[in-house]
Amino acid sequence: MLGLASVTGPEWTERALGSLDEVLLDHVHCEKKAASTAVNLIFRYAHHPMLMEPLSALAREELAHFEEMLRALAERDIPFRRVHPSAYAARLMGGCRDTEPGRLLDTLLCCALIEARSCERMQLLADALPAAGEPELATLYRGLLAAEARHHATYQDLARATDLFSADEIRLRAAELAQHEARVLAALPPEPRLHA
Amino acid sequence: MLGLASVTGPEWTERALGSLDEVLLDHVHCEKKAASTAVNLIFRYAHHPMLMEPLSALAREELAHFEEMLRALAERDIPFRRVHPSAYAARLMGGCRDTEPGRLLDTLLCCALIEARSCERMQLLADALPAAGEPELATLYRGLLAAEARHHATYQDLARATDLFSADEIRLRAAELAQHEARVLAALPPEPRLHA
Repeated sequence: MLGLASVTGPEWTERALGSLDEVLLDHVHCEKKAASTAVNLIFRYAHHPMLMEPLSALAREELAHFEEMLRALAERDIPFRRVHPSAYAARLMGGCRDTEPGRLLDTLLCCALIEARSCERMQLLADALPAAGEPELATLYRGLLAAEARHHATYQDLARATDLFSADEIRLRAAELAQHEARVLAALPPEPRLHA
Repeated sequence: MLGLASVTGPEWTERALGSLDEVLLDHVHCEKKAASTAVNLIFRYAHHPMLMEPLSALAREELAHFEEMLRALAERDIPFRRVHPSAYAARLMGGCRDTEPGRLLDTLLCCALIEARSCERMQLLADALPAAGEPELATLYRGLLAAEARHHATYQDLARATDLFSADEIRLRAAELAQHEARVLAALPPEPRLHA
């Protein structure tokens, strides 16, 4: 699914439903982090003008999701607070090459993988939430996961738009990083997190 | 005007109109910087939940302005490129206290001052641009300066919303920092920048 190299098993959904409040809190922070990642890329890659508008539009959408999730927390009377983040994103990004332009390709592909994994897991939540008595949250996740799928495609399109990488190079590296993502995810402790 | 302690003279407008392309380029980067400042505050002050939604909405609007200014550049065939930023923002923020909660109040008030100064100068541009044969750019700036005035109010409202500072404390510190802002601005070399 969306270029992922592993499939999330039912134990993840069970764990998430068992600590739904914490998963929601973690998710709010994930949207915030996704926005700041896109903004940071705008700064780091200002010499690639074709990246500017798509990354800015993507950051705006992540911020809108952040606000949407804040409202979902408020409706459930969950106080917004810090949660210690999963090591997922940092370890995943640790697989990016240090030198350009490889670093740019790897970063875009890792961002695409994060969106893909979010999409996969939000689909699992959207499917399971109605039976758990949470039909409204299921609707919320169904809306968000469509955006995640679009963002996955945006990050892959941006890798092509730079004209720095051949289609073969992108495909090969995407497959390698998908393997890396699956290994990173499998090695994480089983916490109630979107990416753990 | 908007709590500023000095008035921009006509020599600034003359300089800006004389290097309009460079001012526009600088302005694009200012919108980007304004967005990232708001996103950074979301991270730094996640323990003040009441700041989250307003800062996120503000960051989204700054990003929309960034995209609007990118389009204005493209319409004038000005390639997007880095420009060395004015030292204004860094020196202004250098006047913030290091320890909380003073740091929060000072940061919000300095952000309010940046928005106020942007508003003042965009007004000067909007007034002067039609006679310089740039009526469309004047319309663009007239739209943007209204948003800057709103953002100025948002940052001041946030200082009150934290419930950490009395109305007197906010007013006094705002006046002190406005003096600091005027000194910082007066000491900058005369470059074609929104804040120089």
